[in-house]
Amino acid sequence: MKVLIIGAAGMIGRKLAERIAADGMLGGVAVDRLTMVDVVEPTAPRGTIGDVRTAAIDVSSPRATEPLIADRPDVVFHLAAIVSGEAEADFDKGYRINLDGTRDLFEAIRAEHLRSGYTPRVVFASSIAVFGAPFDARVPEDFAPTPLTSYGTQKAIGELLLADYTRRGFLDGVGLRLPTICVRPGAPNKAASGFFSNILREPMSGKEAVLPVADTVRHYFASPRAAVGFFLHAATMDTARIGPRRNLNMPGLSATVGDELEALRAVAGDGALALVKRVPDETIIRIVDGWAPDIEAARARELGFTVEDSFEEIVRAHIEDELGGAVRS
Amino acid sequence: MKVLIIGAAGMIGRKLAERIAADGMLGGVAVDRLTMVDVVEPTAPRGTIGDVRTAAIDVSSPRATEPLIADRPDVVFHLAAIVSGEAEADFDKGYRINLDGTRDLFEAIRAEHLRSGYTPRVVFASSIAVFGAPFDARVPEDFAPTPLTSYGTQKAIGELLLADYTRRGFLDGVGLRLPTICVRPGAPNKAASGFFSNILREPMSGKEAVLPVADTVRHYFASPRAAVGFFLHAATMDTARIGPRRNLNMPGLSATVGDELEALRAVAGDGALALVKRVPDETIIRIVDGWAPDIEAARARELGFTVEDSFEEIVRAHIEDELGGAVRS
Repeated sequence: MKVLIIGAAGMIGRKLAERIAADGMLGGVAVDRLTMVDVVEPTAPRGTIGDVRTAAIDVSSPRATEPLIADRPDVVFHLAAIVSGEAEADFDKGYRINLDGTRDLFEAIRAEHLRSGYTPRVVFASSIAVFGAPFDARVPEDFAPTPLTSYGTQKAIGELLLADYTRRGFLDGVGLRLPTICVRPGAPNKAASGFFSNILREPMSGKEAVLPVADTVRHYFASPRAAVGFFLHAATMDTARIGPRRNLNMPGLSATVGDELEALRAVAGDGALALVKRVPDETIIRIVDGWAPDIEAARARELGFTVEDSFEEIVRAHIEDELGGAVRS
Repeated sequence: MKVLIIGAAGMIGRKLAERIAADGMLGGVAVDRLTMVDVVEPTAPRGTIGDVRTAAIDVSSPRATEPLIADRPDVVFHLAAIVSGEAEADFDKGYRINLDGTRDLFEAIRAEHLRSGYTPRVVFASSIAVFGAPFDARVPEDFAPTPLTSYGTQKAIGELLLADYTRRGFLDGVGLRLPTICVRPGAPNKAASGFFSNILREPMSGKEAVLPVADTVRHYFASPRAAVGFFLHAATMDTARIGPRRNLNMPGLSATVGDELEALRAVAGDGALALVKRVPDETIIRIVDGWAPDIEAARARELGFTVEDSFEEIVRAHIEDELGGAVRS
């Protein structure tokens, strides 16, 4: 089996590649070629796959993905995107990468399909950013995507294309509306959602973190480990069970900032908790106010997608996967 | 005021142009230039507008609409599209006209906006084809567009673009999800929905018509006259009242084929009714089974959009607008 990961230098793409390389297989079938591309050349992970290829590819340049598809990978993971803030700051770049890059990929697959009958499984990283306020406390399963960012718009368009290309038989697509990923490893970034991870990750390494919103703020989360699980399941499941609505709300944990802090205290103690500094930020408060506190994902759960049940579980996954099993604080 | 109609040779575009030309104004403001374009050159309507321009433009050729936007029309009606059946038969052509043509238009407007601050009202013809089964007996207001045709997909993408370009301030957009238009004037066409009009229009002219589905089939309708009213209202209303969700389910009449036949009988008599021949067609039965029987449109009604209350009203509008006030049978 040949596997292609587009966006393999990103946080989830990298972890997904590491997991597939470590397993050496996908859905019980040996992976004999793993191709990893991103705008910067990804790092090949350790593992048992004989043929791991890495390359720097700019998906926004026309036909960039054609040579990758000519190799006829059985599974294509498409995670390449510029993030919300950048897509908002640079309108053209956001549409070029997040919309045109996705459409070009699907077109390359269609061209190969028309040539040879090739119909790969395509797993598309979408986002709960397709949903825009106002909405109820819990966004229903079939709620309209009415994004309030260009990024969310581009993801919603990618979903529509994925569903139509699937319906027409050109590919076999599954779109995953990912919850906010927490705890994100690595350095704090400028994303408005960054604090959700910062207030856990930094204190667990003995560092201070800023909390810009109230403890009562509720949002919808999954760990990086759960996200990797979503992609693996989507790549190997029986898609006939999904029906025509191929874009699925992924299960997530609906929790408050207070729940996060309680989990931090339980796992890392009062010392860690004391490293969280409350510095209200009106801009971030306003942005986060437009995010979904909870999202119905009964369909995905029925289809076998799973996620953490508590923030303590999310924190413990971070400690196991990123901190070698122990907290430093 | 300058008005541009793209898709002015189509049935609704033509009627919209005729109405604006007859009124000589839009929203109480004199129209001093009306530009009408389509893939075939539209016919200039009679009226009091001094400057009526017509041209053949292929919106699918890149930058085709740039010269039109350089004229800075205050209101842009965008109705150009290829229909459902053709978009399904010719995948490339559907995406080129319905998606790329729409995006090119919005990009031309954005470019002019960035140059000069130009921010026109843009009224976009979308369709209830954005909704795909399964759904409840009445599609709720905020139900997810999950189209089951490429045409519906392209319209749903156009809606997302319209909303994002509006949010970013490049244009002031209103998207109208049009019900099935009935009674369509002119000759019977091959659209799967054609019979809804044929069974009224043909008998009223003394001709036979084929009914391929059961009398109990329920669907969602508006007359051509009501549709023109939607466009005029969207062009002149206070869009600040709409909020960020700029794509609106238009009000429609939820009615059965039996309701249609009863209206035909009431208006044109038993002789006309006898011209309707029942010839079940499994293909059409299956297609129509995926269409919405009713759609919630409370938001649009609150915003002042109106439609017929009965099929008799729809039939009488047809007799007034198309038959010179009298039935021929």
